This record gives sequence, C-alpha cells and structure tokens, in this order.
Amino acid sequence: MSLKLGGNILVTGTNRGIGLELVKQLGEKTGEDAHIYACCRDPEGARAKALRELTTLYAGKITIIKLDMSDEASISAAVQAVSKQIGAGGLNLLINNAAINKPASPAPLSATGKKDMMEVYETNVVGPFLLAKMFLQLLKTAAEIGSLEKDKGDDMSCRRSAIINISTLISSIEKCPETFPTAPMYPYRTSKAALNMLTRCQAEEFKIHNVLVTAIHPGWVLTEMGGEMAPLTTQESVLGMLSVMSSLSSKDSGMLVDWKGDRIPW
Amino acid sequence: MSLKLGGNILVTGTNRGIGLELVKQLGEKTGEDAHIYACCRDPEGARAKALRELTTLYAGKITIIKLDMSDEASISAAVQAVSKQIGAGGLNLLINNAAINKPASPAPLSATGKKDMMEVYETNVVGPFLLAKMFLQLLKTAAEIGSLEKDKGDDMSCRRSAIINISTLISSIEKCPETFPTAPMYPYRTSKAALNMLTRCQAEEFKIHNVLVTAIHPGWVLTEMGGEMAPLTTQESVLGMLSVMSSLSSKDSGMLVDWKGDRIPW
Repeated sequence: MSLKLGGNILVTGTNRGIGLELVKQLGEKTGEDAHIYACCRDPEGARAKALRELTTLYAGKITIIKLDMSDEASISAAVQAVSKQIGAGGLNLLINNAAINKPASPAPLSATGKKDMMEVYETNVVGPFLLAKMFLQLLKTAAEIGSLEKDKGDDMSCRRSAIINISTLISSIEKCPETFPTAPMYPYRTSKAALNMLTRCQAEEFKIHNVLVTAIHPGWVLTEMGGEMAPLTTQESVLGMLSVMSSLSSKDSGMLVDWKGDRIPW
Repeated sequence: MSLKLGGNILVTGTNRGIGLELVKQLGEKTGEDAHIYACCRDPEGARAKALRELTTLYAGKITIIKLDMSDEASISAAVQAVSKQIGAGGLNLLINNAAINKPASPAPLSATGKKDMMEVYETNVVGPFLLAKMFLQLLKTAAEIGSLEKDKGDDMSCRRSAIINISTLISSIEKCPETFPTAPMYPYRTSKAALNMLTRCQAEEFKIHNVLVTAIHPGWVLTEMGGEMAPLTTQESVLGMLSVMSSLSSKDSGMLVDWKGDRIPW
C-alpha cells in the first residue's frame, strides 16, 4: 500500500497497541519526507521497549517524545520539544490515540465513581483539546505551505494538515442500545461522545484554516484495552485506518468513520 | 393545564431561571400528593430569595435542600437529607437542571482552558451521574410502588419513576455546523453531549427497573445563561417541558426531545 501521508506526523499513546502499530506502519510505509513524533508517558520505561526498537529500525525517522495527556505542563513541554525540532514545515498530522478506560472492567453505574469519570475525561477529551489548541499554529502553517504544493491538492487532507481523534463505535449515542449490555463503561462512553463533539466543533472552527478534523473508530481490536475476544488484529486495524486517513477530504471533516471508511452515526 | 406529575419530585439548580420556574409551576399545578425538593447551592443567600418566597406561597409543599453539584460530599448529604424526609413512596421524579457554562461568554478554542473543561464536566455530567447513582434505590422503590397503582399504568412515566436530564439543542453533534458559529462553547457542548450519552446509558441500565430516563432541551430561554436575544420566556419553556414530561412513556426513554416534545438528533 502506498500511503498518501507524510511530512511531520505526531501520534500519542505509542508504547503499545494501536499507537505502537501506527508508528510501525508509518515508519515502514511513508516516504523520506516523513518524520514521526511518537509520544508516550514513559519513554525510558520497560513498557516502551518495543517503541524504542522502532527508532533503531527506522533510524532518523522517529523521535520519541515524553507526554502525559493528563498533565497540562507535560503537554506544553511536549509541544515545545516538537516545535523546536519540527522546522518550517509545520505539523501535518496530529493523531490523538492515547486514551484510558476506568474502571478496568466494564461496570454498571453502581461500581463507577467520580474519580473514574473525571480522570477518563481529563485524558480522553481535555488532553486532545489542549494538544489541538497548542499545535494549532503549526497545523495552520502546514496547511498554508500545503496550498503552495501541487501534490497536496486544493482540498483538505491528512497529507496537508489534519487532526485525527481516535474514537470508538461505543461513542455512538445512537447505537448505545446495541452496545451497552456487553460494555456499560460509563466514563469511557461519555468521554468519547464528548470527543466526537470536540471533533465536530474543531472541524467547524478550523475549516477556514484548511485543517481537517475527523474521528476514527479503529474497530474492536486485540489489544490490552480491547481484550481477547476482539475479532481484529492491530495490524489489520491500523492498515485500514491509514488507508482511510490517506483518502479523507473536506467532506469527511467533522465526521466519525470506522477503519473501513464507513460513517458511524452520532 | 392538568399535570400528570406528582409524588416526590426533586429539582436541582432552583434559585433562578428554569429551575426556579420549574418549582413554581410544579408548586402551582401538582396535586396534594406532590412534594417538591428544590435544590440550590446557597439556600440562605440573597440569590435564593425568590425560591424561599415560593416555600411560603406553597406552604408545606416545597423543601429547600442545600446542594453543590461539583461536590460529592454535598451531593451525598443532600441525598441523605431527602431520604430521611421522603417516606416510603420513594423518589418519583429527579430533574437534573443545574448546569454551569464557562467561560462566561462563547469562546473559541484559544480562549478556553483546561479548568473550564474540567469544571463544566464536573457539574454538568458527573453531578447528575452521582445523583442518579445515589438516588437509584429510591427511584426503584417508586417504580415498584407505581406498579401496584392503577392510575400510573403499566408503562414507565414521570409520574411513576423517572430521571429528566436537562440538555440543550447545542448538545446535538449532528446539528453542530448550524449552531457552532454563534455559540462555540467547547466545555458546555462537550459536557452536554456526554450528558446525552449518560442519559441513554442510564435508560438502558434502568429499564429493567421501569425507571424512565429522558433528556429535554428547554428551548433558547430568556435567562442569565440564555441571554437577552432568546425568543422564549422561562414560563413558556417550563409550561412546555412539564407538558412533555406528563406525556413521556417507555418509547421516549433514552431519547433527547425539546420542550414541544419533538425529537432532536444526537
């Protein structure tokens, strides 16, 4: 697969699961102009070993950035570190993949607390909110430069300037009656519905700057969060999502689509 | 108008605006079996004067309860105070009306901060989440008793046992492109989209107990929050909402409707 993705790409939550696979496939499938900023909470820790190995495999193409989405100072420091290194091209693609789920197992209302609700919202919604806010100038820069380059076209695209918010099927309020019985998950669901709203608001506010904003459901994936029953491998999910990202245009901005490109209702 | 509402009714955010008018019209239009628990942050303060006057006007029918939706200990204390007084009938109707909006004026992403996002979510989503959790037993009690009383019918209703979450048109992710330009309001919008998800999750979880859960948009109302351009008086809005509440049944549980009873897409 030839990806229509490149330039400066930032991915959050990359030490495992979907985030790690995103960095791997982006490292493998993008051209020489691409540079990947791979963010995780603890770049030196044991859990980031696989990510560190990717920086050797794709030497010079990947920079690991320390980032804790629940900590505004950490977000600010990460943005500064990336800004220093990124050069004049701006940021082409911001993929908000980092997310948490509490309590660890699907739980009814009675087994869910205020702390669960607040912490999940902080990481899953306010983190992406702050990252977009702090990177907006670099995203606008990339969009402006993109307008001068023929291969990026006149339209919005992930090659030019975009925010991808990784959402989920169970963010769909419409589909809740189908999905709730096996996955109550109040904090996760409310946070992802809020993330969908954030996506659509950003799409409205940023369209004047030609910055595309789309939410993508990765499918139900075999990860620590997805569990062992999941029917989709991370490889298949990420292959699909990168193909979808390659084809997104202005008509998809402000939408929620799945890893095959199909729309999901709000 | 004869309201099909009664029993024990609790309303939050009642010192002004829609909440105050809800207490007023409920005091006026419900029968002798009704008792209204009117919650506000500062029952003794100057801003609760109009509410205190209603307790004189409808003597014995209204109890003011101190409640700060951002404070779990305050919610717990309020639930205990109501539980002591409520008797064997349980709680028939919980109206989550209290909400905040920050920053005070509609603001783009750049003028909105983490504190705004977190505080608005805490009051507008986590507050109603905790209140429902702590009142669930009393709501179930009311639903069980209701099944023995012929006039309440076999179906779910606000007369029997229900949670009404006051939402807003601008919670609609679908309608965001229409409403965003004049009202960006990131913290409020994301919180209310999350409240809609909470509503639908609760409707799914509580349907086995015959507790109805519906979100209602009060219209764009002439209140401190609605501003001077609003086309609807609080009287008209509340008249409409109480009429809608009177007619809700199981088919409306898990839905978002407006003060005229029309469905709003997610």
